[in-house]
Amino acid sequence: MPMEFELERTVEVLERTPKTLRSLLEGLPDAWTRGNEGPETFSPFDVLGHLIHGEETDWIPRARIILEHGPSRPFTPFDRFAFREVSKGKSPADLLDTFETLRAKNIASLKALDLGAEQLDLVGTHPELGSVTLRQLLATWTVHDLAHLGQIARVMAKQYGTEVGPWKEFLPVLTRR
Amino acid sequence: MPMEFELERTVEVLERTPKTLRSLLEGLPDAWTRGNEGPETFSPFDVLGHLIHGEETDWIPRARIILEHGPSRPFTPFDRFAFREVSKGKSPADLLDTFETLRAKNIASLKALDLGAEQLDLVGTHPELGSVTLRQLLATWTVHDLAHLGQIARVMAKQYGTEVGPWKEFLPVLTRR
Repeated sequence: MPMEFELERTVEVLERTPKTLRSLLEGLPDAWTRGNEGPETFSPFDVLGHLIHGEETDWIPRARIILEHGPSRPFTPFDRFAFREVSKGKSPADLLDTFETLRAKNIASLKALDLGAEQLDLVGTHPELGSVTLRQLLATWTVHDLAHLGQIARVMAKQYGTEVGPWKEFLPVLTRR
Repeated sequence: MPMEFELERTVEVLERTPKTLRSLLEGLPDAWTRGNEGPETFSPFDVLGHLIHGEETDWIPRARIILEHGPSRPFTPFDRFAFREVSKGKSPADLLDTFETLRAKNIASLKALDLGAEQLDLVGTHPELGSVTLRQLLATWTVHDLAHLGQIARVMAKQYGTEVGPWKEFLPVLTRR
């Protein structure tokens, strides 16, 4: 039975993500944070940059476009690789700090919007997907966090992919993308 | 480039897991912690029970079997569903506490073993996989943590699987097992 959207259920996940990522990544050496799954894939470090870019340009800015312009103004397309600029010359600790600050600010903005059911039903225009609601945008923000947390765990697991020897067969995480 | 096994790299992930799971799950309502992916699949709550059962019967006990008996004594088979007894009547907070305590104890045991390269090469007998080394066992402990962290994130994401609307197409986490 999947859940129905509730703002409180959404916020309680969104506000946990910075601390979860800090618990998982803070103080780890590059061997864990900079490894990826091959060319053109994200390392845990890259994911942090991507999440920061989302805080800056995606979720709350798109919510405001829906609230202020409705479907008439399509969202600005999200650049999935712009994080490369965000994270250049930074350490994982820098990115964890930045993400935590931006997320706290964006949750405060979300709460300040004090959205009711009628506003959550408002429709915006996604440049590729077409009509989407504010409710769907906020649910996606939450799922996006969890998807990238899972990705970080998977990418880290793969760094030990050969070291597990015969156990590889019991660990589908090591062969999944 | 996958990493080579190092005890320090292993411990630094193993010791983070209790805090990461606490950051992610503590205080969340059943809607997030008790949902699963369908019949005979694990909820985040079930995963906590499974991790506890591993601390009690799998990793360190198997390491001791290798150190004390070598390949002559096969490991006791691990019961992937025994966690149902472990977690009966417990709350997620109870399980987080128990896991944290057991993991700290097991990491202390691991450090006390003061394993050198020669011991890490020792061979044990897995009841299904055959010959495995102590090094592979410890790498698998680490990957197993990360696999289940990823699973928890995925299972939580799926609770909002319909609420994301058209974004589903951009979120492979929602259709993956």
